[in-house]
Amino acid sequence: MTDILVAPRDQLETRTFAALQAAGADEASARAATRAMLHASRLGIDSHGVRLASHYADVLQSGRVNPTPKMETRRTASGSAVLDADNGLGHAAAYAAMELACNMARESGVAAVGVVNSSHFGAAGAYALAGAEAGLITISMSNTDSIVALHGGAERFHGTNPIAVAAPVPDQRPWLLDMATSSIPFNRVLLYKTLGRGLPEGVAADPSGQPTLDPSLVEMLIPLGGTDFGFKGAALAGMVTLFSAVLTGSTLDHEMIRMAETHDFETPRRIGHFCLAVDPDRFAGRALYDEAMTRYLAALRASGAGEGKNVMAPGDREWAVEAERQRTGIPVDRDTAQFLGLNT
Amino acid sequence: MTDILVAPRDQLETRTFAALQAAGADEASARAATRAMLHASRLGIDSHGVRLASHYADVLQSGRVNPTPKMETRRTASGSAVLDADNGLGHAAAYAAMELACNMARESGVAAVGVVNSSHFGAAGAYALAGAEAGLITISMSNTDSIVALHGGAERFHGTNPIAVAAPVPDQRPWLLDMATSSIPFNRVLLYKTLGRGLPEGVAADPSGQPTLDPSLVEMLIPLGGTDFGFKGAALAGMVTLFSAVLTGSTLDHEMIRMAETHDFETPRRIGHFCLAVDPDRFAGRALYDEAMTRYLAALRASGAGEGKNVMAPGDREWAVEAERQRTGIPVDRDTAQFLGLNT
Repeated sequence: MTDILVAPRDQLETRTFAALQAAGADEASARAATRAMLHASRLGIDSHGVRLASHYADVLQSGRVNPTPKMETRRTASGSAVLDADNGLGHAAAYAAMELACNMARESGVAAVGVVNSSHFGAAGAYALAGAEAGLITISMSNTDSIVALHGGAERFHGTNPIAVAAPVPDQRPWLLDMATSSIPFNRVLLYKTLGRGLPEGVAADPSGQPTLDPSLVEMLIPLGGTDFGFKGAALAGMVTLFSAVLTGSTLDHEMIRMAETHDFETPRRIGHFCLAVDPDRFAGRALYDEAMTRYLAALRASGAGEGKNVMAPGDREWAVEAERQRTGIPVDRDTAQFLGLNT
Repeated sequence: MTDILVAPRDQLETRTFAALQAAGADEASARAATRAMLHASRLGIDSHGVRLASHYADVLQSGRVNPTPKMETRRTASGSAVLDADNGLGHAAAYAAMELACNMARESGVAAVGVVNSSHFGAAGAYALAGAEAGLITISMSNTDSIVALHGGAERFHGTNPIAVAAPVPDQRPWLLDMATSSIPFNRVLLYKTLGRGLPEGVAADPSGQPTLDPSLVEMLIPLGGTDFGFKGAALAGMVTLFSAVLTGSTLDHEMIRMAETHDFETPRRIGHFCLAVDPDRFAGRALYDEAMTRYLAALRASGAGEGKNVMAPGDREWAVEAERQRTGIPVDRDTAQFLGLNT
């Protein structure tokens, strides 16, 4: 990312929201997408931050995404529901799905909402985090368009299919995992190409499926675990497809219109998401959970590190970035700054 | 494994069951543990197969494991329950927990059972598979004693903490993932040591946390993802600890008495497990789910492979081993054969 500007959070938020509204999004859709993009931008997940605002504005205007969706929820049992996103922005649908999953889980102990007829939802961690901030242990996931080979494969098959998990921690920010099931995202390949750097081993392959360190030869990513253990990453990607798409009847990764690398920006992509919530009150009980979580994280952070290294809990890096950016502002690349009217 | 004998499945099953009963296990405990060990032995997961029978017999007699547990289930909501295993064999508890989760999920859409006061439960996939064979998408997991460093760590912190996921497939064996969150299990290190072979890169470290290829120097495993991306494997291991132990109030990995590398075989280890079931009938509906699952797997198996390679769905390798062993019998190492009285 070519940083040309560091913007205060409030200004970024206002401009992003205004840009989505200007592209036709209704207030609820624009608010949810802005919240999710700011989540990512605040925490340093810049690939899913305000950089995406211009993409969302494009697809709101081109027909792929419905700017004024009528979301409908069908409750199917005490702990399950299906939310039809009416091809609106995925962020609004996923926040609503997680909120419903949490409300149901408070009654039924565990609950899940499958989202259908949705679109790109940005950073999966935004929704898991929202649930953890409401006191529940949560999982959110979404399948995405094909870019990762199978283990031993020579073809794009799964998406980078993120898994996010979050859990409340007393008196601290939540435990927060938000990971792609490939080792790196595809835009990291493009960044390395721009920088003229070689890739790490076992993260990407050429059109024949042969691993390559040369970013200019890359046709597909290799699943987490690399050339030896990529069957694990491929299986995790498949798990995301199972819950997000097969379970909900949504578009499979390999059938999905590509996010950007396509001429079709008119057809809705019918992406599926899956949100799960578990209420600690219905298992060990809140007091015992809180005590165990505190003890676990204290032990983790005190665990010995290698020379020159340190150990962290999932989310610790993100909370540090958030604190830093709270002080200094959020870096914005040139194109996005221009799109949001920040460099005027 | 030094194979000295190939035994027919029925004989192995009978002898394993008898050995556990001879060690004091009641019929239900012995039957469940035998079923779980045979699951592993049939599918080629020999580390968790009948090889463990003598270990279980030992801990049944030494006091660590209660040979005649009175399991108790506390239903906490429509989709949640806690099963107290009374320090019996983990297999009986986990099968019962998954069965209950499935029964609840048929009513509530989604359900989970936390298991407390349990012990080693063998292959996590045994329970996920049982749920998938009953028609549900399932997850089973358990934390285990510390052997895996954190990312950048120089100390054993998490266990190999397996995650198993299974899903029904119409007219085929289920989709089945059963993976440790380290790249390899510790007994693979011991095997490489015996064979005088070097380890793959980035799977294990010496006592200072430095990655090593020399199995004789290994003090700890490195999480899935290796030296570059091990933060993902470490987070997945942490997720297993969260659901299995923190949520249920069970022993944390680093507080757990070691399975074998200890002098204490008397104290119960109070291990926790977590079983989740999701009913496709409450999401897309069975017909749509079946159609999507079939379409997904057909596309996966038809996806292009690299030269000299092939692509497989999770479980495909195991089902092939099972078919082969159905024909030829199950290989049993010398010590286990002797323990089970097979080489007489």
